[in-house]
Amino acid sequence: MSKLLRFPNRRSDLEGKSKRIKKIVVVGGGVGSSVVLSGLKKYPLDLNVILTMFDSGGSSGELRKELGVLPCGDVRQCLVALSQKRNLTKFLHYRFEKGALKGHNLGNLLIAGIEKMAGNLETAIDIIGKLLNIKGKIIPVTLENANIEVLLNNNELIKGEENIINCQHLSKIGIKKIYLKPQVKANSKAISVIKNADLIIIAPGKFYTSILPIFLVKGTSETILKSRAKKIFICNLMTQAGNTDNFSVQDFLIILEKYLGKDTIDYVIFNTGKLPQNLFKKVKKVFPKGDFIKYDKNLLKKENFIGADVLDRRLQPLNPADILVKKENRRTMVLHDSNKLAKIILKLCPVRQLR
Amino acid sequence: MSKLLRFPNRRSDLEGKSKRIKKIVVVGGGVGSSVVLSGLKKYPLDLNVILTMFDSGGSSGELRKELGVLPCGDVRQCLVALSQKRNLTKFLHYRFEKGALKGHNLGNLLIAGIEKMAGNLETAIDIIGKLLNIKGKIIPVTLENANIEVLLNNNELIKGEENIINCQHLSKIGIKKIYLKPQVKANSKAISVIKNADLIIIAPGKFYTSILPIFLVKGTSETILKSRAKKIFICNLMTQAGNTDNFSVQDFLIILEKYLGKDTIDYVIFNTGKLPQNLFKKVKKVFPKGDFIKYDKNLLKKENFIGADVLDRRLQPLNPADILVKKENRRTMVLHDSNKLAKIILKLCPVRQLR
Repeated sequence: MSKLLRFPNRRSDLEGKSKRIKKIVVVGGGVGSSVVLSGLKKYPLDLNVILTMFDSGGSSGELRKELGVLPCGDVRQCLVALSQKRNLTKFLHYRFEKGALKGHNLGNLLIAGIEKMAGNLETAIDIIGKLLNIKGKIIPVTLENANIEVLLNNNELIKGEENIINCQHLSKIGIKKIYLKPQVKANSKAISVIKNADLIIIAPGKFYTSILPIFLVKGTSETILKSRAKKIFICNLMTQAGNTDNFSVQDFLIILEKYLGKDTIDYVIFNTGKLPQNLFKKVKKVFPKGDFIKYDKNLLKKENFIGADVLDRRLQPLNPADILVKKENRRTMVLHDSNKLAKIILKLCPVRQLR
Repeated sequence: MSKLLRFPNRRSDLEGKSKRIKKIVVVGGGVGSSVVLSGLKKYPLDLNVILTMFDSGGSSGELRKELGVLPCGDVRQCLVALSQKRNLTKFLHYRFEKGALKGHNLGNLLIAGIEKMAGNLETAIDIIGKLLNIKGKIIPVTLENANIEVLLNNNELIKGEENIINCQHLSKIGIKKIYLKPQVKANSKAISVIKNADLIIIAPGKFYTSILPIFLVKGTSETILKSRAKKIFICNLMTQAGNTDNFSVQDFLIILEKYLGKDTIDYVIFNTGKLPQNLFKKVKKVFPKGDFIKYDKNLLKKENFIGADVLDRRLQPLNPADILVKKENRRTMVLHDSNKLAKIILKLCPVRQLR
């Protein structure tokens, strides 16, 4: 945790003296980043999202294997989140229910197809971004192809995002080493937006398979560490069976800073809200081992830990056509409330003027 | 062929006295209609295209079988033709080259997916049309599912668009009857635009499988016959092996008016241009039985027959990923020149002001 005194000039700048539009960089996976962006989109901000690129399962993973494209599911989520034609974007999430296409997501096919045609993912994002009139930039953390590997403390090696998520004893045995194979370097655009950021937000997401791998990409953590931007970590809502069982808010922070650099994070936003019992029961039916992430009550007294009810009480419906993801890899049913998050973030980094 | 004297009021109206933007209705399949529309798009016109809906082969046909959607290939061609963001539309024609998606067209998947999600093709056209900012309306001739059947003079029954195209003896044996199964009724929007049209253009296209079936849909030919609009028939460039061997311009007209109604057509535009020998050899390699459509030289003296060099001399490249269409059903390599067509059409139906 940072001492919050490192960059006084930049901090005053952030507190409203400048008339420049603030540059925000969200870092994460598809769902978490898109929740953060959906809230921030309503304010006059320069939005950028740096996306993890190591998914190996689901529709995205299938396309990656079959076509040799980069994973596109997270890109799709953020395209929708940033679109200023939201009423025209619902189709991007459609999943085919029959035939050879069963389980495939239409938006993923669109991104993958354009990537194949154009030869690179960035052009695909650019074309769809223009059609959907997105507000902000979507930046793959790397344009190279790599997979995550985890060496457990018992020397067991687990290869690939999907297998790591599905590993039911990762948090029990503990991790000796996590790395990318091959070691890939960051997209120069990602480095550039981090350098110029006023605020860097680490979004919630699958911790070992979406969030940490971003900082394993050559150039990212070094640049974030050097950056004068404020850094906010938004902690997950629930534990992930096998991967983060019994994790507390502080456990996440300690591990994150191990990879990102000590004292990097200025603020941690964590959830204190609970679901009504009937909804919680529904969630437990699907995720019997999942639980809300615990926190030490003393954190609530600390200036840098912002505990608040940031829970969206509308459960995410499960899609029966979502057959390409394994059971353990099921999408989360509980999301952050994007508007509440945005309000907290903007208190920490005030903007010139609200819309 | 019409006597051109039926609707004097409407004719003078068409010749520039009105300040109203002219309503044009193009009727046909995907490629031919999109060529006609691409040229007309450059002028201040109210453009509408009524599309045939009976394709059973290719990527479009596969999706129709697998997902139960209406054929979408022709819709895609017209979306691209009418888009005012042409630089962003190239991807719609991309065909996957590998995996389960091999041979499928990205634009087709997009249309089919949105149709499945929204429950109808018209919403899919509306959504993509808005994203691509199309100029004009794309109207499926029917929203009901039907197939073409042909009974030959030897009582052989051929079912389905793909099989009819592939039939190598259709023109030799001759047709006793062509009909839709089931008999479907026209989309009310198609009827409405025909009623209000100033000009109806029958685009070039596969004659028995794209063009004629439109007039077999309940309501179309009756409404066209009653319409006060000028009617132009743009004759194909080349014969189609097995289907229209040795057909002349007048053969097409006679058969068309058999289905559409006698003396319905006011003008026939036909091609008099030829390809340079080296290009023609290339075409003959792919279509050994195809030939340019012949015409009686006396037609050139007739006011209602407009013979002109309307040939685009850029051959259409074949796409090796286009594996879902049968050999006989290959896409045409020779197209009309859209600008030349538009100029001739506008001489016949002058518009207030060119752009």
